[in-house]
Amino acid sequence: MSNSLKVALLGCGTVGSQVAQVLLDQSDELKARVGREIELVAIAVRDINKPRPGIDSALLTADVEALLGRRDLDIVVELIGDIEPAGSYLRAALSARASVVTANKALLAVAGPSLFEIAEANKVDLYYEAAVAGAIPIIRPLRESLVGDQITSVKGIVNGTTNFILEKMYNDGADYQDVLAQAQLLGYAEADPTADVEGFDAAAKAAILAGLAFHTQVVLDDVGREGITNLSADDIAAAKDMGCTIKLLARCDLADDGSVSAGVYPTMVPLSHPLAGVHDAYNAIFVESRYAGHLMFMGKGAGGAPTASAVLGDIVIAARNRARGPAGLHLSAYHQRKIIPNDLVCSKFYVSMNVVDKPGVLAEVAKVFARHEVSLQAVRQNPDLGAARLGVMTHPARLSDLKAAVIDLETLDAVSAGVTLIRVEEE
Amino acid sequence: MSNSLKVALLGCGTVGSQVAQVLLDQSDELKARVGREIELVAIAVRDINKPRPGIDSALLTADVEALLGRRDLDIVVELIGDIEPAGSYLRAALSARASVVTANKALLAVAGPSLFEIAEANKVDLYYEAAVAGAIPIIRPLRESLVGDQITSVKGIVNGTTNFILEKMYNDGADYQDVLAQAQLLGYAEADPTADVEGFDAAAKAAILAGLAFHTQVVLDDVGREGITNLSADDIAAAKDMGCTIKLLARCDLADDGSVSAGVYPTMVPLSHPLAGVHDAYNAIFVESRYAGHLMFMGKGAGGAPTASAVLGDIVIAARNRARGPAGLHLSAYHQRKIIPNDLVCSKFYVSMNVVDKPGVLAEVAKVFARHEVSLQAVRQNPDLGAARLGVMTHPARLSDLKAAVIDLETLDAVSAGVTLIRVEEE
Repeated sequence: MSNSLKVALLGCGTVGSQVAQVLLDQSDELKARVGREIELVAIAVRDINKPRPGIDSALLTADVEALLGRRDLDIVVELIGDIEPAGSYLRAALSARASVVTANKALLAVAGPSLFEIAEANKVDLYYEAAVAGAIPIIRPLRESLVGDQITSVKGIVNGTTNFILEKMYNDGADYQDVLAQAQLLGYAEADPTADVEGFDAAAKAAILAGLAFHTQVVLDDVGREGITNLSADDIAAAKDMGCTIKLLARCDLADDGSVSAGVYPTMVPLSHPLAGVHDAYNAIFVESRYAGHLMFMGKGAGGAPTASAVLGDIVIAARNRARGPAGLHLSAYHQRKIIPNDLVCSKFYVSMNVVDKPGVLAEVAKVFARHEVSLQAVRQNPDLGAARLGVMTHPARLSDLKAAVIDLETLDAVSAGVTLIRVEEE
Repeated sequence: MSNSLKVALLGCGTVGSQVAQVLLDQSDELKARVGREIELVAIAVRDINKPRPGIDSALLTADVEALLGRRDLDIVVELIGDIEPAGSYLRAALSARASVVTANKALLAVAGPSLFEIAEANKVDLYYEAAVAGAIPIIRPLRESLVGDQITSVKGIVNGTTNFILEKMYNDGADYQDVLAQAQLLGYAEADPTADVEGFDAAAKAAILAGLAFHTQVVLDDVGREGITNLSADDIAAAKDMGCTIKLLARCDLADDGSVSAGVYPTMVPLSHPLAGVHDAYNAIFVESRYAGHLMFMGKGAGGAPTASAVLGDIVIAARNRARGPAGLHLSAYHQRKIIPNDLVCSKFYVSMNVVDKPGVLAEVAKVFARHEVSLQAVRQNPDLGAARLGVMTHPARLSDLKAAVIDLETLDAVSAGVTLIRVEEE
């Protein structure tokens, strides 16, 4: 097929085999959508002898370097994951003027800006819809549909594993460790759940979203990060009691002076907020912009077929662009925005602590907050949580001030160590 | 500005003035996003003497023909509305090789296919993100992000006026006429509300969505349509009683044999369905596709700023394409799918009727349904609705069979005229 657009796949796991299947089975339909034939010419795999039903073994190769050395590839699809060797492969592919489609959020979060530079220099596309929130179209809407608007905030539930765990904790009143064990048993959490439960996966996505939304470079190191491993059944009960649920939110904000912040934190979300209704392994992204107002995008955030859907969409668009001529400038990160240190980002907080149940404790606690200029919205001593559990809702305050207040609180005789902080989303 | 991309605006109402303002005020930001300057060269208006704050009157012209006669326009933005003369203007613009951005759903629903043909022939873009669901990015996600997937169903709340009225009927238990009067007073409904409440506005959007989702031509005449004017407080109470709310849904479905259907109907939606949580003047589109599964897009469906956001996004992308070179083939409607007559489309229905309260009525009613091969899921005689009100929930059945059953029901002595049908969305 001399006139066909040639696609090479790197990786043939859950997503890769699904993508290969569609490229092979639906080639007529895809040809109609592109205007030219899309030809899957090779699939790079570690083990070419493993049986792969429906895929001609002649397509398989273990020699990625040789594959990328071909000069006739139009599109390289990377589904290997991890930073290396995937990064080197993509640099080679882009330098050889192939367009690239990838689902590799970890790579993009650390090396995105340099990869985009190579793509620009070679006038090829670098697409990554599958890297954030699986099948939910969010990259293209941010990059294109909202490109005439000014996005001020992006908040998302972008990790299904933690959403599943938090929802189960909420529904069953169970503790984190118990629910995690259950989630692992059901296959919703990995044997080593660190990347999910400590927020690393969500933080990589936050970096990508913030860079895209605010047209600036944001990398993983810029993203504040807090996992869900310290959340207790008490925290969830307190949230419930205040008409909230707890979600692990990735949040990216544009400040009035043009600087930006990005972070991943367990956050109390009022039940009336659309993000509170995002269940199980679903993902959702809530966008606020100057003209469009509030938008929400919801869908399946992971899994072979949903991720394949996003990858295939990117392949078709990259193929169309290829059929049309060399890609032009994309110029997404043209700002050099100041990134706000996460300690200086403001939020409402719910602060809870065990106190000795005697008169005067409340006044002592309030004095500490006042000293650190954290103003309080409400103080509660919920009998359901034991008389000695004190909860304080603050007005928006800097994390640094809260941290300093916590250190002081823990020096009080009436307060036990282990004061906890949870962010609270405003209604 | 010899190297600038030249934009002409047709219309300067709520949306147009907002678009003009951003083009004038944010030209540096937009230049960064496009890679070239976007220059607003003229605005066609009916009355050039009307004061328009912030807009240089030298930009205004009442002579649209002369404006379109210029051969140097890169992008024409049409915000006049109605089918003519807007259609003629856009044909002229496209034929003169200008790319077109429009928010004109009525025009696209009747003349979309022919306009796209002219755009293709002249290798220019025709974008219309603002035509459906205002600021919600739905056109580009369907056209691009999901272009590698197979969409099987699109259901949407795409009319804010009717959503507002239905929600008020639900919350207050009020009748349609009372709520309409209130909505008109508040400016949520027009003095002549026909286009909204009879479903014409939603039907135009359904035609656009169905064509796009299924890559085939669907025009307004293909769309089944039923408004909300006949809904009573009783209907809403019945829905509430069954754990549902009533929404005016635009729905587009792909059948197993590749044929398609599109319609707009008041529909009972279970409260657990994400569409049930779409409030006030918000719009939402719920998409089901083979690989991505369920997706939902939610946001403001109307208003000057949200619509301007969508228009500006289209202008930026059209400008980028322009800077890059002539547009290639888009080939969206390459299928000639059979369109299913709306009478043959299946749905669950809730059928309610006033009956004489005597033994044997239920059996008579059930016999009529059986005769028309409509099978019943449940029959209810809710005391709250009066003993003489009978409600029947069917299994999925064809509208034609339901209609025939209703005719027969109304001939029964025990049943009064005025049997009503409401579609029911499955959970």
